[in-house]
Amino acid sequence: MTANKPQNRYDYDVVVIGAGHAGTEAAAAAARVGAKTVLLTTNLDTVGQMSCNPAIGGVAKGQIVREVDALGGLMGEAIDATGIQFRMLNRRKGPAMHSPRAQADKKAYQNFIKFRIENQDNLDLRQEVVEDLITEPIAEGSDRLATQRVVGVQVRGDAAYYARTVILTTGTFLQAIMHTGKSQSAGGRAGEGTTAGLSGALHHLGFTLDRFKTGTPPRLNARTIDYAGLEEQPGDEDPQPFSYLNDAITSPQMACHIAHTNEQVHDLIRANLDRAPMYSGQIDSRGPRYCPSIEDKVVRFADKSSHQLFLEPEGRQNCEVYVNGISTSLPRDVQDAMFRCIPGLEKATIMRYGYAVEYDFSPPTQLWPHLESKAVSGLFFAGQINGTTGYEEAAGQGLLAGLNAARLVAAQTPWVPSRQDAYVGVLVDDLVTSGTDEPYRMFTSRAEYRLLLRQDNADRRLTQQADELGLIDAARRERFQNKRRDIERGNELLKAAKIQPPTGPVVRGDVYLRRPEVTWETLREQVPELGEIGKEAAEQCTIDIKYAGYIDRQQAEVHKQSRHAEKSIPVSFDYDRIGPLRTEAKEKLNRVRPINLGQAKRISGITPADLALVLAHLENHSLSQTNSKTNPSSAITSSDAT
Amino acid sequence: MTANKPQNRYDYDVVVIGAGHAGTEAAAAAARVGAKTVLLTTNLDTVGQMSCNPAIGGVAKGQIVREVDALGGLMGEAIDATGIQFRMLNRRKGPAMHSPRAQADKKAYQNFIKFRIENQDNLDLRQEVVEDLITEPIAEGSDRLATQRVVGVQVRGDAAYYARTVILTTGTFLQAIMHTGKSQSAGGRAGEGTTAGLSGALHHLGFTLDRFKTGTPPRLNARTIDYAGLEEQPGDEDPQPFSYLNDAITSPQMACHIAHTNEQVHDLIRANLDRAPMYSGQIDSRGPRYCPSIEDKVVRFADKSSHQLFLEPEGRQNCEVYVNGISTSLPRDVQDAMFRCIPGLEKATIMRYGYAVEYDFSPPTQLWPHLESKAVSGLFFAGQINGTTGYEEAAGQGLLAGLNAARLVAAQTPWVPSRQDAYVGVLVDDLVTSGTDEPYRMFTSRAEYRLLLRQDNADRRLTQQADELGLIDAARRERFQNKRRDIERGNELLKAAKIQPPTGPVVRGDVYLRRPEVTWETLREQVPELGEIGKEAAEQCTIDIKYAGYIDRQQAEVHKQSRHAEKSIPVSFDYDRIGPLRTEAKEKLNRVRPINLGQAKRISGITPADLALVLAHLENHSLSQTNSKTNPSSAITSSDAT
Repeated sequence: MTANKPQNRYDYDVVVIGAGHAGTEAAAAAARVGAKTVLLTTNLDTVGQMSCNPAIGGVAKGQIVREVDALGGLMGEAIDATGIQFRMLNRRKGPAMHSPRAQADKKAYQNFIKFRIENQDNLDLRQEVVEDLITEPIAEGSDRLATQRVVGVQVRGDAAYYARTVILTTGTFLQAIMHTGKSQSAGGRAGEGTTAGLSGALHHLGFTLDRFKTGTPPRLNARTIDYAGLEEQPGDEDPQPFSYLNDAITSPQMACHIAHTNEQVHDLIRANLDRAPMYSGQIDSRGPRYCPSIEDKVVRFADKSSHQLFLEPEGRQNCEVYVNGISTSLPRDVQDAMFRCIPGLEKATIMRYGYAVEYDFSPPTQLWPHLESKAVSGLFFAGQINGTTGYEEAAGQGLLAGLNAARLVAAQTPWVPSRQDAYVGVLVDDLVTSGTDEPYRMFTSRAEYRLLLRQDNADRRLTQQADELGLIDAARRERFQNKRRDIERGNELLKAAKIQPPTGPVVRGDVYLRRPEVTWETLREQVPELGEIGKEAAEQCTIDIKYAGYIDRQQAEVHKQSRHAEKSIPVSFDYDRIGPLRTEAKEKLNRVRPINLGQAKRISGITPADLALVLAHLENHSLSQTNSKTNPSSAITSSDAT
Repeated sequence: MTANKPQNRYDYDVVVIGAGHAGTEAAAAAARVGAKTVLLTTNLDTVGQMSCNPAIGGVAKGQIVREVDALGGLMGEAIDATGIQFRMLNRRKGPAMHSPRAQADKKAYQNFIKFRIENQDNLDLRQEVVEDLITEPIAEGSDRLATQRVVGVQVRGDAAYYARTVILTTGTFLQAIMHTGKSQSAGGRAGEGTTAGLSGALHHLGFTLDRFKTGTPPRLNARTIDYAGLEEQPGDEDPQPFSYLNDAITSPQMACHIAHTNEQVHDLIRANLDRAPMYSGQIDSRGPRYCPSIEDKVVRFADKSSHQLFLEPEGRQNCEVYVNGISTSLPRDVQDAMFRCIPGLEKATIMRYGYAVEYDFSPPTQLWPHLESKAVSGLFFAGQINGTTGYEEAAGQGLLAGLNAARLVAAQTPWVPSRQDAYVGVLVDDLVTSGTDEPYRMFTSRAEYRLLLRQDNADRRLTQQADELGLIDAARRERFQNKRRDIERGNELLKAAKIQPPTGPVVRGDVYLRRPEVTWETLREQVPELGEIGKEAAEQCTIDIKYAGYIDRQQAEVHKQSRHAEKSIPVSFDYDRIGPLRTEAKEKLNRVRPINLGQAKRISGITPADLALVLAHLENHSLSQTNSKTNPSSAITSSDAT
């Protein structure tokens, strides 16, 4: 709709719609860098709610949480304060694969997030039902590609919030339908409604919307589970915090347990596949490949006679148990019957049935890398609305959208980390360059330079930049600087140290540390000054030295790859004028509108020959078009060119 | 609807619909006495939620909480565990007026209640949307007045719960409409839907439904309040627990603060009265007289230039502040503007706007005193659906309904405390005898024998009966018996003690204690054995002795009043056959169907002459009708005849 004059008007710089994992990070980030921000949610009691699994982190996802924390975000501190079981996954593999994961006390987690939001300066948290977007045409001659600009949102009850930027983080709530067997109901989460008005508004503004589905498993009552015969999965003995602000986790750890499906369960599922919405044709949207429903698993892995189920407690004073591994939209009688056949769960009572939810998402190729939409200036999208899954992916996008909305308001260039700087960089580049044809989840394999993108060095990759961007406070700055000084001092001490190995000649400390059997602790016995170096810094020195060969090789590769990558492409660049360019390449380049050659290269189906043509014409273009429209992401201050 | 055969069937003794303060007590009580019980809620995340003020207790209400606790209920323990500020109101008045009240950590409170429910044996807590009641006709010749019996409930998703008894505790959710200014939306609480199907089902079964309204004030962000100029209201220095199981409250206390409205605020309200739904004609249902909206206060107490506002924190890690005293459905711009004029709140941000909610209730004269409906056997009603306000009134009814549903299943006679035994007895007797033409709230003035119904002696009034009913566990039984033994021993010691007062002859300890200036502590110095008596027992001995005269007088009055009161009236008693009985009396008696002469007498407009006629005919009736229908409440085991 176009701007009108409602009776009640509130003015902000940034309006964030939705207070889940994307929305809360977005609002907090925008407010941290100084934008006057409001966060709107339909229900204040669901701020920061963990709608699905009661856990944070995991492989590649844990790295994202560390990055969000390094950028001053909320998620790491929240899980550290409210986690009930911490585990470092892949500990036996190299440091690039180490991935922190923790079970949360679900209610405590959301209370923590809400309290942080409530206490954030420059940020108002308000309960409102957003009904429409308010936009206005951009005058001819503007320097943006967009033809509309967002100016605010209309809320229920004759009121509107006006702002230069609006961030949409609607999760699974756009035109949502929940399914359990044949039973369907409108809503994005049990007991809560759907957000219909916004889908219409986006359609009206010319956005393409598509449908995805996701699912959630049944929750059991712990009192009705027979744990005696189940395998216990304890937390780590030395639980590691997610936040760089914390030294240790001291709260007591709870155990998870492992149960198993069997052929009896699988037979039951096969016999009822015609009643599963995914297989009966009732749902035809795509679900998350890497978080499949139990009916998917039984069909796709027909030779497996058993699947693991992780029984995850949802809190310390909470009997609900999340059954990780058995997401399902089968009818309730099948859900009941499945557990009757699973040892340990024969008498378990389902407290909430599993269900699938179908929802609208906005294919993310409609966005610039900084998450602003191409069609509507000032309108940002973050989280599940972009086709992603996962709290962590949502948080990363949210933080980036919040930061960039605030930067737009302040007339600053966008900031986006590059693929070699952060998983968050990989995430947004994948999304805006390639889109996604199934709910997008992060994996370490998506990153070209995963030895650089470790969970242990997210602060070294990002906190200095975060400081320059205004995202972090003095306490974090000081802590980071101390650690950096410690690392330098550690390296100096190592280089200065003369070590007498058990055999052979005296060597320098850093050389000695390269040996596989030598640890920091071994060295500390010989170089007492190393005792002054903090634990985290010591770990960094050790990894830097032990993996120096691999790290140097990846950095050389980064350098080589980015020779042309940083060459930016103006938004008004006319691919159609490149005569020899293949039609397919023109179509794809026109759709994605890559901000630089690096992004163009990553578009599926774009060949080196296509790139050479574009590069050649770029030179002409820059000569001929002095006053061309600026691509709003073209001047990003990322280190894409490092 | 009549019984059918849905695909998924679950069998229980007792089904409770709704998991608020009534529903949780109902389900827990039914399960405690051994009935196989299921508690159904549309959203497991709102079990035990404090929808309005974050406080438990208050004048007369605190007494009810103590009674609920004495009967083994949840509320007392929940508030003791999660309270953030405890105050004993009316401490300077006599013990009958002492009323405990506490602010709760709202989220912690609901988590505590949910965890208790989850851990209760015989009880399943399940997330379901109830869509209809399943009933069947009662065969001719049955011994009940009802012509239908409930057999279960239909839930969303092709499933039904079958049970001999169903307890409805729908709160404000039946056909609910929320109002803020002209803005209306369907729903019983922000962000949550309405329960439409059940209103239709009740209509269909012949129930009369009526409309009430209630309201809630705006919630402010504590960070935006300037507390410097506001009066602080601290908690008690010696906070007293609600539960008889607890000796003391040891958690740290938080302060409330007091702000004040002024003429500027009142002028603003008066200038906008035409936009208040209550005054514009948009709402015409009645609201709670004793918890009026600010617009009501300004109109009804036009001469007052200021009203107190209590700023109540909603939790320890929660910035939401409940502004007690400013419930309103004025439009949002007026709500915003009001705070701008209130010292200390000039810059306060509203997080949730106040609103009024209109909802269906079922006039409670349609119920027997044990809260079963007269029209449908096995169908019980408890809480706000009966036209009451308050968490405490809801909890008391819930406990009673749960107990009596379980007793019906077990073919036991109902149990209802009498008016001289408990505020809960006053409550249900008022409701079923007189109904209510505005949301019903308990007051000490509603009780004839309030010196007997003290907050300090609820256990002595009820716990022995609760034990016989099976409502309490061994720990509570033992604690109670110890206390009773202590009281006896204390009385013996007092009677045996010879005290030499400062002047005059030696007197017995109990005689000496009657003197106003003498306390238990004074006596303990002279009778060291009194040191063995527990604090609570000592208090009971002291009150028994100091107030003996008043207490004896009330007990004599009880005795006198109940001479005819216990005379029960059969359900099939035919008032129309009493020729001389006035038409008005016949109508009222037919509507209420009092269970005994005591209840008949309390019906408004029934005269002593009417009662004499009924009594005379009762004798004939009992001679002529040997096989008459039994009034299901006529054999209640209450002490109405004491």
